[in-house]
Amino acid sequence: MSAVYGGVEGGGTHSKAVLVSAEGHILAETDGPCTNHWLVGVDNCINGINDMVQRAKIKAGLDPDTPVCSLGMSLSGGEQKAAIQKLIDDMRERYPKLSQSYFITTDAIGAMATASDYGGIVVISGTGSNCKLVNPDGTQVGCGGWGHMMGDEGSAYWISHLAIKTVFDARDNLVTSPHDINYVKKAMEEYFQVSDLMGMLPHLYRIFQKSHFAGFCRKLAEGGSAGDALCQHVFTEAGKALARHIVAVLPRVHQDLFSGELGLPVLCVGSVWRSWELMKSGFTQVLSEAQAHGYGHFQKYSLLTLRQSSALGGAKMGAQNAGASLPLDYSANINVFFSHTFNQ
Amino acid sequence: MSAVYGGVEGGGTHSKAVLVSAEGHILAETDGPCTNHWLVGVDNCINGINDMVQRAKIKAGLDPDTPVCSLGMSLSGGEQKAAIQKLIDDMRERYPKLSQSYFITTDAIGAMATASDYGGIVVISGTGSNCKLVNPDGTQVGCGGWGHMMGDEGSAYWISHLAIKTVFDARDNLVTSPHDINYVKKAMEEYFQVSDLMGMLPHLYRIFQKSHFAGFCRKLAEGGSAGDALCQHVFTEAGKALARHIVAVLPRVHQDLFSGELGLPVLCVGSVWRSWELMKSGFTQVLSEAQAHGYGHFQKYSLLTLRQSSALGGAKMGAQNAGASLPLDYSANINVFFSHTFNQ
Repeated sequence: MSAVYGGVEGGGTHSKAVLVSAEGHILAETDGPCTNHWLVGVDNCINGINDMVQRAKIKAGLDPDTPVCSLGMSLSGGEQKAAIQKLIDDMRERYPKLSQSYFITTDAIGAMATASDYGGIVVISGTGSNCKLVNPDGTQVGCGGWGHMMGDEGSAYWISHLAIKTVFDARDNLVTSPHDINYVKKAMEEYFQVSDLMGMLPHLYRIFQKSHFAGFCRKLAEGGSAGDALCQHVFTEAGKALARHIVAVLPRVHQDLFSGELGLPVLCVGSVWRSWELMKSGFTQVLSEAQAHGYGHFQKYSLLTLRQSSALGGAKMGAQNAGASLPLDYSANINVFFSHTFNQ
Repeated sequence: MSAVYGGVEGGGTHSKAVLVSAEGHILAETDGPCTNHWLVGVDNCINGINDMVQRAKIKAGLDPDTPVCSLGMSLSGGEQKAAIQKLIDDMRERYPKLSQSYFITTDAIGAMATASDYGGIVVISGTGSNCKLVNPDGTQVGCGGWGHMMGDEGSAYWISHLAIKTVFDARDNLVTSPHDINYVKKAMEEYFQVSDLMGMLPHLYRIFQKSHFAGFCRKLAEGGSAGDALCQHVFTEAGKALARHIVAVLPRVHQDLFSGELGLPVLCVGSVWRSWELMKSGFTQVLSEAQAHGYGHFQKYSLLTLRQSSALGGAKMGAQNAGASLPLDYSANINVFFSHTFNQ
């Protein structure tokens, strides 16, 4: 077959695979479950990836026994070198017909590669959260991305946890809730199918599934949209938390990134951004405060979303790593959903 | 043999068993590992308990094939009724020679039963944390005790986590540390045998062991005693957190508990209390603020420790449940290590 390049986006809940032609056209896309190897283990991770890519080959009318030229994977949890090398080695050994070459990067870098070759800030908020600044010279500065035990601020996990913790603390009289807890308590009992707080313990420990726990966030978004004040509160806090990640990397942003038409480009990835309207007040407040306290050259920012899976950026980087250059139409891959210019 | 009553204290890191005569004399004591069934599973929990009690029988010169009259267990994680019943059923079936009857209560209630039959407030801070008010009429009010995913404020786990999170946040420029992080960072790298923050990820996820993670608290206590400001800070915060548990139950304290010679008796259980000097300023500050804001009848409090394992209180309650009354000399079981009378 003519040259075909594979890409994978691996998230904490869902994953995607894409096959791209040498001209940059998408030949096929497939979906799969969580492929974060920290969450599901190496075996489930590489099985899931192989399954998605092989199904994509068949969907594109290709021979599944012929390896693609390269497979570029944009994985949540794809940060640690030794772990990445093990994933690649295992894939090579177990699935020799999958791909000729392999490349793994993080979900943040894969997303950025889908949106631009000039850089910007990526803020991921899906099951977990993460932030990465990519400067025009390619240098990277990260903030967060340590998982739910040491971070994930502003993620679906974190939002779910904050709401549930507020219910526990109110029950204990340990911290007074800023708003009535009844909606959240009821929604929690329904979502987790429990009748009291004690019933939550298995969901926190024995049968804890980060992705399922984080899924409660959707119910909170519904509550927020319907007007529940506590639901709205946790999303406002999430907006603040995500904005704080941007403030954390602000001192390291190359000044050229401030001066484009969009101002500082912030690529927003992950399902939590669908609740932007609920997060907006907290998010804009934190950035405005930071700007007012000493970032005079920070005049404007724009929030972008991807119209394509970051599997596409993964495919581009995988091809690049194998010596090929995939032409991507970046402007077709992004969508600007919010812009803000600070008052002078 | 003459009547022998067994007691168990099950913690998140260590456990103890005790055999007591009908006259309340201790016949033998043994140690064992963590028996929190949430942490180690039901099988390990009941195996550990059986092993400790059987060894105690041998140590006391008793026939291990003769069941004790009753086995009263004071277990961290011993709160949920269905889970407790399963533990008892499994023990009965698997170890018919262990005991004639079984009784399980929480670590907090077992500790209180060791110290007094009049009530007070128990504040546990070991691997995890928990607080329980027991009123003279036997009514109980709890705060905390939900484990590390939803609480454990002021525990060894929480102190370790707070210190490590401070290092992560400083590295990320997400939150500025109130003090220099170098001592804590070095101690962390040594304790966990890692060379950077990325190396901590397995310790937080794949090979996470709550008890090992919480064990880092000991290094922080050493640092605090040696004068490191960040170590001192996390213990001050722990003191505040533990005091907030007391404030949470204060509105429900029966007024008779305020009026004894010791003032409000607070029974302090768990290894973190060994670092009382480091926690004192935060702890006393929170209680003084609460007293000043509307608890006029709260004039004095005293902090007590147990001189005996709360396995003894467990044995007492197990015997009680089986219709026997063990005479305990409470004054010999406790030690007052701090008293404070508020300024009028």
